[in-house]
Amino acid sequence: MYQVKGYAAQNAKTALAPYSFERREVGPTDIKIEIFYCGVCHSDLHQARDEWAASTFPIVPGHEIVGRVTQVGSDVKSFKVNDLAGVGCMVDSCGVCPDCNDHQEQFCNDFVLTYNGHDKHTGKPTYGGFSNSIVVDQRFVLHISDKLDLAAVAPLLCAGITTYSPLRHWKIGKGDKVGVVGLGGLGHMAVKFAHAFGAHVVLFTTSAGKAEDAKRLGADEVVISKNPDEMNAHTLSFDFILNTVAAPHNLDQFMTLLKRDGTMCLVGVPDSPHPSPNIANLIFKRRSLAGSLIGGIKETQEMLDFCAEHNITSDIEIIPMSGINNAFERMLKSDVRYRFVIDMATI
Amino acid sequence: MYQVKGYAAQNAKTALAPYSFERREVGPTDIKIEIFYCGVCHSDLHQARDEWAASTFPIVPGHEIVGRVTQVGSDVKSFKVNDLAGVGCMVDSCGVCPDCNDHQEQFCNDFVLTYNGHDKHTGKPTYGGFSNSIVVDQRFVLHISDKLDLAAVAPLLCAGITTYSPLRHWKIGKGDKVGVVGLGGLGHMAVKFAHAFGAHVVLFTTSAGKAEDAKRLGADEVVISKNPDEMNAHTLSFDFILNTVAAPHNLDQFMTLLKRDGTMCLVGVPDSPHPSPNIANLIFKRRSLAGSLIGGIKETQEMLDFCAEHNITSDIEIIPMSGINNAFERMLKSDVRYRFVIDMATI
Repeated sequence: MYQVKGYAAQNAKTALAPYSFERREVGPTDIKIEIFYCGVCHSDLHQARDEWAASTFPIVPGHEIVGRVTQVGSDVKSFKVNDLAGVGCMVDSCGVCPDCNDHQEQFCNDFVLTYNGHDKHTGKPTYGGFSNSIVVDQRFVLHISDKLDLAAVAPLLCAGITTYSPLRHWKIGKGDKVGVVGLGGLGHMAVKFAHAFGAHVVLFTTSAGKAEDAKRLGADEVVISKNPDEMNAHTLSFDFILNTVAAPHNLDQFMTLLKRDGTMCLVGVPDSPHPSPNIANLIFKRRSLAGSLIGGIKETQEMLDFCAEHNITSDIEIIPMSGINNAFERMLKSDVRYRFVIDMATI
Repeated sequence: MYQVKGYAAQNAKTALAPYSFERREVGPTDIKIEIFYCGVCHSDLHQARDEWAASTFPIVPGHEIVGRVTQVGSDVKSFKVNDLAGVGCMVDSCGVCPDCNDHQEQFCNDFVLTYNGHDKHTGKPTYGGFSNSIVVDQRFVLHISDKLDLAAVAPLLCAGITTYSPLRHWKIGKGDKVGVVGLGGLGHMAVKFAHAFGAHVVLFTTSAGKAEDAKRLGADEVVISKNPDEMNAHTLSFDFILNTVAAPHNLDQFMTLLKRDGTMCLVGVPDSPHPSPNIANLIFKRRSLAGSLIGGIKETQEMLDFCAEHNITSDIEIIPMSGINNAFERMLKSDVRYRFVIDMATI
């Protein structure tokens, strides 16, 4: 075991504060990474405050991790010391189930979360990227291009893949009209990807102030979802809608905008249920309401390579590690465009 | 115009009773059919009693119509006098929209219901199959094989196509595990079709008394959905579930039985909303909740031809026209295996 510097919440009511803890030594298939940057996801806040009632304390959040390899195990072939590397929401899975065999480790019943999980090697809790070093099995480490701004790559590991994967799964491309609901960490990546895939992109937001930004990010149109006339103008016109809003809201107002056979995919789990959707909106146009969860490791690498090729990163605001509690408060007010990233040199 | 004998409800509170009315004469593209049998669908009861608050009275229900051609218009090529013929839930559509061009007339915004619709030719209400004759444009008339029991073919025009179409759309076949929820008029056809397509079929019912019947109809397994142990044994195992139950119920108990990427398709619109589904069940296995509406005319003909080839019909109980009000009461108690069909010779 070796010592790591991190930031942890000691219980649901305390702010995050410096915390020293141990990680396992590098095993034959492990990679040790010096963490340079870690993005701040809304789920970090939820879990630090135990809002999902599933947190083990102390908790060290962070699952949008980028840095540099400092040590590799004897059996590691695909990484070497000094390579750039990334880690997302998962650090392990069973490796043998149909989901793992299909490169869909995020659906494995036995996958291990980067933090608030249980390390199969030590039996202890996993700790995340709000720390200066991490050890991860090579199967869950991603290659990062040196062409991109490293800090702005970090959010790709969660916000990026969570939006890239459903757009790919539902085969979004040229000729498709795609809606993106919400312009936050996930939504702004969804706009960039859908635009890069060649779709006509419409951003739905409740904030008129985000319209200009949305267009800069790649939206062809912006609709203020509180305005019924603006909404009705898009009735029956969308092939696909990616809904990134987790707060409970009226799903029907978006379902009715889908064409026959259209799908709305949700990527946020609400704390309390959405109003029950009107089943007639599904039946009378054979529409689907679906969900999607991050993406598999192979697809995450594909996404990172796509980003390097197309010069896509997250729009970020860099903060020092000590700024995390203030950042959480600002996130609650949606006061970030569009992702906080912690500079881990400040820890 | 010519005179027709039918059965109508004069308002939401009265029983169905004899009613004479007029239909248009045969135009160049029309076909006149002497009705031999008409199936009784639950939606007939809903609309006769104005439970959907959209009925125009007097109302002549009936949209599972089979009979014999007695007259054809000058431009009709594909039917001749004495041919067997069928009519389902629609008698017209715009004919030019993308849905019509894709042979999906049931999704046309301008389609005309067989009853409780508005006849484009006369501007008057349409009247359904609880009558001895009907005139329908040739585009909406189906060919019926003489190999099958004609009375037992009638329910194929609604209950048949409503279950056949989603099973085809989601490409159900050999190797698939398919659930059917509910063993009524729709459910019993879904079991027959899913079995005929080569799937492993599991019937979900709340009535233990239906288990034997379900197996006779083609179910490989029967699950009593009130029994949590029986339900849990099927967790994460279904490729597709066709849910024929319109009454509000817990959708989550079935969603969790789907595999990753599985779909549950609903074909019944509930009178009041289902409890709001748990979105986590969609996200954590990328599942879909979908809907489907009858089927297009081309697919309805394909379904009828498939039935003739595979000797598939509905299980029916023949009643006289005067027995319709008693049949409605028995339907409310699910006391029919599995579809009432009116012998129109008794009108």
